[in-house]
Amino acid sequence: MEADLITIGDEILIGQIVDTNSAWMAQKLNDEGINIRQITSISDQPEHIISTLNESAGKSSVVLVTGGLGPTKDDRTKSALCTFFGTHLIEHQGVLDHVIHLLAPRGIVINSLNRDQALVPASATVLHNKLGTAPGLWFKHEGTIFVFMPGVPFEMKYLMENEVIPRLNKLFNTLTILHRTILTTGLGESMLAEKISNWEENLPECISLAYLPNPQNVRLRLSARGENKKYLLKLLDKEIKELTEIIPEYIYGYEEDTMAGNIGEILKEQNLTLSVAESCTGGYIAHLITSNPGSSQYFKGGIIAYSNELKIDLLGIDRNVISDRGAVSKEVVEAMAVGARMHLHTDYAIATSGIAGPDGGTPEKPVGTVWIAVAGPDSVFSKVSNFANNRERNIIRSSMTALNMLRLELIKNKTI
Amino acid sequence: MEADLITIGDEILIGQIVDTNSAWMAQKLNDEGINIRQITSISDQPEHIISTLNESAGKSSVVLVTGGLGPTKDDRTKSALCTFFGTHLIEHQGVLDHVIHLLAPRGIVINSLNRDQALVPASATVLHNKLGTAPGLWFKHEGTIFVFMPGVPFEMKYLMENEVIPRLNKLFNTLTILHRTILTTGLGESMLAEKISNWEENLPECISLAYLPNPQNVRLRLSARGENKKYLLKLLDKEIKELTEIIPEYIYGYEEDTMAGNIGEILKEQNLTLSVAESCTGGYIAHLITSNPGSSQYFKGGIIAYSNELKIDLLGIDRNVISDRGAVSKEVVEAMAVGARMHLHTDYAIATSGIAGPDGGTPEKPVGTVWIAVAGPDSVFSKVSNFANNRERNIIRSSMTALNMLRLELIKNKTI
Repeated sequence: MEADLITIGDEILIGQIVDTNSAWMAQKLNDEGINIRQITSISDQPEHIISTLNESAGKSSVVLVTGGLGPTKDDRTKSALCTFFGTHLIEHQGVLDHVIHLLAPRGIVINSLNRDQALVPASATVLHNKLGTAPGLWFKHEGTIFVFMPGVPFEMKYLMENEVIPRLNKLFNTLTILHRTILTTGLGESMLAEKISNWEENLPECISLAYLPNPQNVRLRLSARGENKKYLLKLLDKEIKELTEIIPEYIYGYEEDTMAGNIGEILKEQNLTLSVAESCTGGYIAHLITSNPGSSQYFKGGIIAYSNELKIDLLGIDRNVISDRGAVSKEVVEAMAVGARMHLHTDYAIATSGIAGPDGGTPEKPVGTVWIAVAGPDSVFSKVSNFANNRERNIIRSSMTALNMLRLELIKNKTI
Repeated sequence: MEADLITIGDEILIGQIVDTNSAWMAQKLNDEGINIRQITSISDQPEHIISTLNESAGKSSVVLVTGGLGPTKDDRTKSALCTFFGTHLIEHQGVLDHVIHLLAPRGIVINSLNRDQALVPASATVLHNKLGTAPGLWFKHEGTIFVFMPGVPFEMKYLMENEVIPRLNKLFNTLTILHRTILTTGLGESMLAEKISNWEENLPECISLAYLPNPQNVRLRLSARGENKKYLLKLLDKEIKELTEIIPEYIYGYEEDTMAGNIGEILKEQNLTLSVAESCTGGYIAHLITSNPGSSQYFKGGIIAYSNELKIDLLGIDRNVISDRGAVSKEVVEAMAVGARMHLHTDYAIATSGIAGPDGGTPEKPVGTVWIAVAGPDSVFSKVSNFANNRERNIIRSSMTALNMLRLELIKNKTI
């Protein structure tokens, strides 16, 4: 079963607002086994409305439209609907009573704009909008269902949940569609694709895979379609288990997990504490950790040692090591992690030292060279990465790499 | 002049991501005098791609497409393009060299997926994508301009700003449209509107004003339209000067300025240094400062004192003051700023202590209570803010408020 989503109005077309309604509706409809074929944003010009309805009608069984309804702007939309459906406007007593009922407590005597809201196309089924003055409108026209809702997000959501989705479920026997998202880090999209190509090729036909990359991670999304929900759930579990066995060290979570959030869970569970000593990441690792509610339970704090003097003063790094090896070196970053752990009295500590750019690179240590260390109760270890020449991305990728090193170490050391 | 925007890929159709690309592109194109006729999101099925391109082609002079390009998913899109444009794929040496160049520093030997990225439709003009492996593609076909870009936001933005918009401007003679953005902080949208209502009402007709609020600031965008560029420039300068006289303390910059960047400029100019002592902001202030290239010239580092012990150990706060007044208090936050300034040997220091939420509030100090202090060579001062119950926004707003307090103090103390 497929549906088209249409939004009417200028706000989206001039980029003044982002279309979050469509994303919300798409998710809800997907959960009910309804695929979205197309999302379209158009102006409120009657010809444009009519041609877009025409285009969608032939292709999807359901067309859901938001926007273009409301006290100051529904004239054009409603007259376009009358043209499209070959009908005319009538005053709807139920809607009129509701408008009066909504405005009375605010001491408002209804004006002609309010009264016009009770005008609805004669062939429409009115969907009661408890939260606003503009009703939802439901049409069955030449085999296609058309639904019109106001664009105000909470009114649209109310109508979807209480009127539209229950009616669609009654009308259609829909397929189940299930999604699972696997969060990976440490491999670029193409390297990851190569590593899991065998597994990907052997996925059953009812499961499809999508790669969703961004600077922080590559998310893998599995979508399963079919009639038997139980069977699909089992199938997804089995495929995710297989995938996890192929790239265990690159998967750090599922669905809405965050790397720092997962680390927090492990630390809480094991009653462990954490600190950071950041140079090139400049506080971003601490920010990722402290973005999680309750992080004060395990995160004691950190030292941002941007200058060499602070590395010496606050973390106890040997001045000679810095001058011999340079601040961006294995020796210094490991001493930073050990120093943070000791001076901040935590079980674990992360340290970073690198050249974020755009300046400061040398032939031996070009921009993007980043040393990262993790110190724990029994050991300290470090590695060097070579990122690219973009300051913002270097900070993000260094931070994610550091957190992943800690995560793997925590899992390795986990006591049961 | 009208343009259509098309996004290809499943992420938007299943509601996994919100289509922020289209809003950004719509705004940019509007700035250039190009109206958006329609925004369409479709799947990556070749037939759907082709029919959508066909529908847009007759109606708009420009069709901009994002998504469907990238190492693991561009086969289908590119073959659909070849069908639509009646052409075939060829290997593009420039793109291949660029892919190799991008991956080499990471020690990656290119695989067949990477190599396929250098295959482009023969009739396309290749737009160089400095930031990624998938190039932009530009076609002129039966009087319509078609442009294809990867969907990764920063790559799309790079291509739009450096390739697409300059080329469109060269091709089409549009009215001059000039924009100026004024960055304000410290006043909500409606308060700001009230303060500047007289000025706003007296704006000349060729200048329009838009309020663009977000958690960090309210941006005011002035747009001037007309034929005489010189005249418009003068007019804008005059209006901005008037506005600045009305709300001098709330304006912290213009266009792409950032608060932390502006502070950096003042510090460099005056040869001053800065440190931070962060509790509730958890490293975010340091991150904002160190996101600026060259910040190591004036930012020495900071202490993230999430736990009370670290406030005592690293910043020298008196244990009795914490137990008497609580960590979230005027006394403690001022002592943190003074302590950071002293222990980190800087001219200025910022400190924060508050309850970011969602837990930790009390009747006297509810979630959102944040104390912020600034210490300088001659004085320390602080203020308390009462933000709301959203952790993420509390962190952002506390950080921006802290930076603004420092900025105003630096300006006040400026020596000429």
